[in-house]
Amino acid sequence: MQLRVIARFVAILVFSLGISMSAPLLMSLIYEDGSTQALIASMLITSSVGLLLFIFTKSQENNQLNHRDGIAIVALGWVMAGLFGTLPYLLSGSIPDFTNAYFESVSGFTTTGATILSDIESLPKGILLWRSQTQWFGGMGIIVFSIAILPVLGVGGMQLYRAEIPSPVVDKLKPRISETAKTLWKVYVLITVMEIGLLFAGEMSLFDAVCHAFTTMPTGGFSTKNASIAHFNSLYFDCVFILFMLFAGINFSLHYRLIKGDLNVFGKDSECRTFLILVGIFIAIITLNVHGTVYSSLAKTFRYAAFQVSSIITTTGFVTADYEKWPVLSQLVLLICMFLGAMAGSTGGGMKTMRVMLLMKHGYQQVFRIIHPHAVTAVKLGGRPVPQDVLSSVWGFFILYLGLFVVATLVMAGLGLDMISAIASVAASIGNIGPGLGIVGPTKHYLLIPEAGKWVLVFCMLLGRLEIYTVIVLLTPEFWKK
Amino acid sequence: MQLRVIARFVAILVFSLGISMSAPLLMSLIYEDGSTQALIASMLITSSVGLLLFIFTKSQENNQLNHRDGIAIVALGWVMAGLFGTLPYLLSGSIPDFTNAYFESVSGFTTTGATILSDIESLPKGILLWRSQTQWFGGMGIIVFSIAILPVLGVGGMQLYRAEIPSPVVDKLKPRISETAKTLWKVYVLITVMEIGLLFAGEMSLFDAVCHAFTTMPTGGFSTKNASIAHFNSLYFDCVFILFMLFAGINFSLHYRLIKGDLNVFGKDSECRTFLILVGIFIAIITLNVHGTVYSSLAKTFRYAAFQVSSIITTTGFVTADYEKWPVLSQLVLLICMFLGAMAGSTGGGMKTMRVMLLMKHGYQQVFRIIHPHAVTAVKLGGRPVPQDVLSSVWGFFILYLGLFVVATLVMAGLGLDMISAIASVAASIGNIGPGLGIVGPTKHYLLIPEAGKWVLVFCMLLGRLEIYTVIVLLTPEFWKK
Repeated sequence: MQLRVIARFVAILVFSLGISMSAPLLMSLIYEDGSTQALIASMLITSSVGLLLFIFTKSQENNQLNHRDGIAIVALGWVMAGLFGTLPYLLSGSIPDFTNAYFESVSGFTTTGATILSDIESLPKGILLWRSQTQWFGGMGIIVFSIAILPVLGVGGMQLYRAEIPSPVVDKLKPRISETAKTLWKVYVLITVMEIGLLFAGEMSLFDAVCHAFTTMPTGGFSTKNASIAHFNSLYFDCVFILFMLFAGINFSLHYRLIKGDLNVFGKDSECRTFLILVGIFIAIITLNVHGTVYSSLAKTFRYAAFQVSSIITTTGFVTADYEKWPVLSQLVLLICMFLGAMAGSTGGGMKTMRVMLLMKHGYQQVFRIIHPHAVTAVKLGGRPVPQDVLSSVWGFFILYLGLFVVATLVMAGLGLDMISAIASVAASIGNIGPGLGIVGPTKHYLLIPEAGKWVLVFCMLLGRLEIYTVIVLLTPEFWKK
Repeated sequence: MQLRVIARFVAILVFSLGISMSAPLLMSLIYEDGSTQALIASMLITSSVGLLLFIFTKSQENNQLNHRDGIAIVALGWVMAGLFGTLPYLLSGSIPDFTNAYFESVSGFTTTGATILSDIESLPKGILLWRSQTQWFGGMGIIVFSIAILPVLGVGGMQLYRAEIPSPVVDKLKPRISETAKTLWKVYVLITVMEIGLLFAGEMSLFDAVCHAFTTMPTGGFSTKNASIAHFNSLYFDCVFILFMLFAGINFSLHYRLIKGDLNVFGKDSECRTFLILVGIFIAIITLNVHGTVYSSLAKTFRYAAFQVSSIITTTGFVTADYEKWPVLSQLVLLICMFLGAMAGSTGGGMKTMRVMLLMKHGYQQVFRIIHPHAVTAVKLGGRPVPQDVLSSVWGFFILYLGLFVVATLVMAGLGLDMISAIASVAASIGNIGPGLGIVGPTKHYLLIPEAGKWVLVFCMLLGRLEIYTVIVLLTPEFWKK
């Protein structure tokens, strides 16, 4: 552990975060929304702390990072971003309570989208932009984390993606990160700009277009409206959001290859095919199940089903329908979507399509093995055999994910939540979705969760966002040895 | 596939089943309960069909069984036992509807204990004995299946127990089965007789003592009373049942070793230790959680918690308390017990302690691997490294168990059950417990489940009882080739 090097990276992050507060500040100046002083103070505090920490951890020449340093930087980075992210909420008085402010801030940076705000529209514009912006930055972090760092660490089967990283550097973390970051961030910015353009073209205000694009691409789900996307009640916007939520749920290196001219890249990738087929199946089930119960026509049912499935499976969490009014089967399908999540290498949370595919294929292979005990078979993905260590890693991820889900659900129940709310609040937090069922349903918020429960859910958001392992290892004495 | 040999084994089973109906018949003669004619007819039909099938499948000398034959016999055996087991219910008019009768019969032979009867006490004594007896026979089947057959097939990690089988024959199924069967059935009978003695000593009627011992040892849970064990409201009986339910949840080869003089065998076995520690932890959590809410004293709370945890984790399903009146946390703990189940090699259902241990250990090992990427480590059980094929097999079991649980839950929800009832009815069926939550809660029954839902749950009971794989392989075209 090179504490100085770790601190230096965190310093850069905190400083950048402080500087980025200039955008909300500008917004508050334009709209004279009363949050200007709070944002100036937040910006000064955050960037000064970052700068001071940077100065006090003056670089030694040889600051190569090892695995543990990488893990510590990532985990500490998210926790600290969450911490400084509370300043605009606290100082402007938008969220006066620290627990609530930290919940909202971590929900932003982890791109979860769970909110404790009961009246979002009453917030100053500057604060609303900051809130959306935390998700957008969180998304940038995730792209680098999941495509550049996790494959090197070999976390949860992500070593499968080692070959995909657009960088010639294999052994050293740092050059790889900056190389990959530059390429994929360009893609991320490009798609975000496209979405802003399309929303603006549909006559959404530029402010709302920016805020919503900022929370679509990281599969975040914060809205500037109390009723989320249902506020706009527009078929056009629904279509744009569905398209971009699905984009956000697809591995960003596929987008990179698409831009490079490989037009059939989504169809060729077996994980992407499976992801899109699953989306189709779930939309079909819900459409058929809901048809004739809540909406006046099949087309309308299909529209809401398509939106809600895309929103939940990509772990975005935008809402156009009160899906708790849907039949139980449809609610259960959405609950399953919370666990499945989108593709690995996307900004989405949950378990990821790739892992679920490997688990299912493994199950099938074991059935085959009972019939042919002496046949030698391997689990394959995209035609290539998957190494045993990748499977082991995926299995470890799955059991830790489920195990922590169960423990957190028990704790939430112990804090007084009913069974469905306990299950759904944890599923929606560890999967980084946002809205759940019961007291945290699509038309509700997280304000009424008991204080201790909010901290449990904050922990779940971080766990899910950092792919479980990255948080768990920090809690082992083993990690801190030597 | 040697259809003739398979048919011959099933013939023997059906014939024996028919003969065994003489016990309920005797009971009905003694009590003149009006079910005599029905039982005579059932006995004649069942034993004649068995006999005819036996004659028509006259033995060829070389009837060695291979893996597939073994699987087919086991699966067909349970399905046919369920079928002929309906005759006493149908012919006596106790359960006039075939679906209900088959549900009750399969619930018996799979030792699930879910009932569609709303007034159990109104049944003739002969039929009540038959109902308990189906569970006792089911338990005999499971002991042989799980200790003699599964290890040879290598299903769900059971190959770990190959060394434990008290038989020198390794390659051929048939001699091993009869060898092991004889030894372990003696143990099973012995413990059953002990329980009958202790219940009778506590002044339970001999009839009730026999019926309840017949449904404790196979972790079945059918009672002759509408209120289950709560009917007796006796601390002494509760203690006896707790003790024998836990016995039934322990690997029967450990009981065999105990009888052979190895007095510390439970403490030495790491799976047994974990199982008993889990039981202790769950009792403690529920006692603390329920304390002060429903019962007048801590002692009383402890008594009901100890009974219900022992009953659910061993997948017996006896009831002394309406645990739906307990706080949500306690209900969730019981729901988790339904998934965990008892030890491998016991008569219990669920996932089994051994598998859950291996999954947890694997998860921990993977965390360790992130910290020390180059360290070579193995998952160990009882100090010995666990081979990779065992782990793969356990993972396969786990994902199939969960996957089928999810699919069946969706179907039950689609049939109109509320979310908690859908989840709990499937969990209680696939885990072979019996009572669940919601409309199938501890004070309710399965009568009101829609007809299609009953068939789904029957399938789940068989799936769980036959350790998933054994049923799933039958559904693959691969199995029937050549």
